[in-house]
Amino acid sequence: MSTSVAKTLSAQPTDLYARIRSYHRIVVLTEGFSKPFCAKTAMSLLRYRHSDVIAVLDATEDGKFADELFGVGETVPVVSSLDNLDADSLFLGTALTGGALPAAWRNIILNALVRGMDVVSGMHDFLSDDPEFSRVAKENGALLIDVRRNNEHVTSTGVPFRSECLRVHTVGQDCSLGKMVVSLEVQRELANRGEDAQFVATGQTGIMISGAGVPVDCVVSDFVNGSVEALIRRNEHHDMLLIEGQGSISHPSFSAVTMGLLHGCAPDGLIYCYEVGRESVKGLSSVALLPHRTMIDAYLANASLRHPSKLIGIAMNSRSVSATQADAERERMQQEYGLPVCDVYRHGATCLADAVLNLKRELGK
Amino acid sequence: MSTSVAKTLSAQPTDLYARIRSYHRIVVLTEGFSKPFCAKTAMSLLRYRHSDVIAVLDATEDGKFADELFGVGETVPVVSSLDNLDADSLFLGTALTGGALPAAWRNIILNALVRGMDVVSGMHDFLSDDPEFSRVAKENGALLIDVRRNNEHVTSTGVPFRSECLRVHTVGQDCSLGKMVVSLEVQRELANRGEDAQFVATGQTGIMISGAGVPVDCVVSDFVNGSVEALIRRNEHHDMLLIEGQGSISHPSFSAVTMGLLHGCAPDGLIYCYEVGRESVKGLSSVALLPHRTMIDAYLANASLRHPSKLIGIAMNSRSVSATQADAERERMQQEYGLPVCDVYRHGATCLADAVLNLKRELGK
Repeated sequence: MSTSVAKTLSAQPTDLYARIRSYHRIVVLTEGFSKPFCAKTAMSLLRYRHSDVIAVLDATEDGKFADELFGVGETVPVVSSLDNLDADSLFLGTALTGGALPAAWRNIILNALVRGMDVVSGMHDFLSDDPEFSRVAKENGALLIDVRRNNEHVTSTGVPFRSECLRVHTVGQDCSLGKMVVSLEVQRELANRGEDAQFVATGQTGIMISGAGVPVDCVVSDFVNGSVEALIRRNEHHDMLLIEGQGSISHPSFSAVTMGLLHGCAPDGLIYCYEVGRESVKGLSSVALLPHRTMIDAYLANASLRHPSKLIGIAMNSRSVSATQADAERERMQQEYGLPVCDVYRHGATCLADAVLNLKRELGK
Repeated sequence: MSTSVAKTLSAQPTDLYARIRSYHRIVVLTEGFSKPFCAKTAMSLLRYRHSDVIAVLDATEDGKFADELFGVGETVPVVSSLDNLDADSLFLGTALTGGALPAAWRNIILNALVRGMDVVSGMHDFLSDDPEFSRVAKENGALLIDVRRNNEHVTSTGVPFRSECLRVHTVGQDCSLGKMVVSLEVQRELANRGEDAQFVATGQTGIMISGAGVPVDCVVSDFVNGSVEALIRRNEHHDMLLIEGQGSISHPSFSAVTMGLLHGCAPDGLIYCYEVGRESVKGLSSVALLPHRTMIDAYLANASLRHPSKLIGIAMNSRSVSATQADAERERMQQEYGLPVCDVYRHGATCLADAVLNLKRELGK
């Protein structure tokens, strides 16, 4: 532990992130991976930056529309090359891991750079560490933006946040079940009502959508809490923050990330997220998920080690069940917990937005 | 979260760590920082690798003995230069943070490299990233070993550990209060009784002492749990593991590290460590420490999310009080918790070693 470290070792990527917001003619690359469960980033870009996306690039699905592949993105065309597109940027639509970049992806990225397009990636392996990509980008005045690159070396100051700023954090039974989406949908609903509510991204897709945030799973562990605290401090002038959760507090691989985030953002309220029917940890089928009650108790107990926190609602992801089953599950959970419950896609985020405003009133913020 | 990442992006430092064990003529550098609270690493090297240390280097304290400066290290001489020493390595005796290396340290390190001595550092900023150090090391056949460098990119497998391997983990009310020392002293006591007990290092000093481990506070957060799991798997052939703790579960800055370590090593037993009289978080005087009971409950609840765990004993650091006060505190805590309590320096680690063996019997391991 380096209790006295409180500095920034290299320039913050904040300027690069801000540039992400400037793109309005984005091509999303999913070549060979245009499946809903593979292309989470692509789907979120199609949903939350719909008006900025001009095409999806996948030669194996050429001629289709985004909606046919992903159930989102309506008539955004799927194309086989960058020819004849007036694009400003290429966003990698999935974070490939565990090996070399496929040859097709390398060529498309090089092709985009040669055209002077910026390339935005959420992969753990950084494009800007690749000598060929770096050279070609430089030669053509293009930028490589690795949203997961983060060298912020800051530890906590222990200074409380602005007390009028309400912080609501999405936490979950597992990873990859919609915590970012819930945060975004609740923020949108509040913004539509004229509230000063800000989405706070903590993962690569959220950063690509909002052009700000900290890729918390890439921060060196000693600086996780501190970099989240700094992120909240950059946003505490807002009335309300909807802070994207990561992993889960019992996740065999990612509980360090979850805990640092939970303590770093010191939430006033928690929204618990789960997927109906999921029984084991994603990617670790031998590890059973823990009961909701156990998970909720763990989140509340851990959050409260740093700051008083309460559960204000539950978000269910019901993609794998029928509408009737989803409604029955919603009713059952509402009864059991006495709290608002919804699937933000099926039911909208109204009841969760109400819960945020109720908490605000209750805390006099 | 990258659930599918399960690879090593670069060579493991395991070979370099092993080399650390080979040194038997170590000079410990503390130039200008020969104070007990500054030179934690130096003190631990003097205590736990006493027979391998030939000198402490601090020109400002030239001519003294280690014992006079640190209360440990007996007659190891304090010297003003590397001249006339037949040394094989220079260990940096404190992890300076937050700025450039002092000029005196630069010169001493360069001087050691020119003599062909390896230089071992636990700093967050890596010596091997410094072009001048790298060049001079290469020219003289010397090695730069940054024990905090770790690029292990592994996530959890979810596979249980060898069931006969008992895992005991030291956890604490705060950082820097003796968790490593307690793990080492209990391991030594068990080894002296002929037990196959292994110390498992998770910090830079522990690695310098044992020549193995993972510097968990430097691992990228997504890989904390996984790299600890891999560390335990490399050691699970032993009957008993004493796993060094880090930070604290409620630490504003470091709870991510603590949680990932707790889940990664899945301990059967916990030893809770605290310092008598400490009231606020080290380095954050505005943040009060939480009561022992709250902390212990939090550790047990969190550990048990992954693996059943119980508290087997309490280690108090009583350096700031008299022997009489220490004994009174010990008695009070024993009564309150009904468990063995000791200061391993004042009372020895006997009762904690007994507690480890009792747990082993109880679990039939």
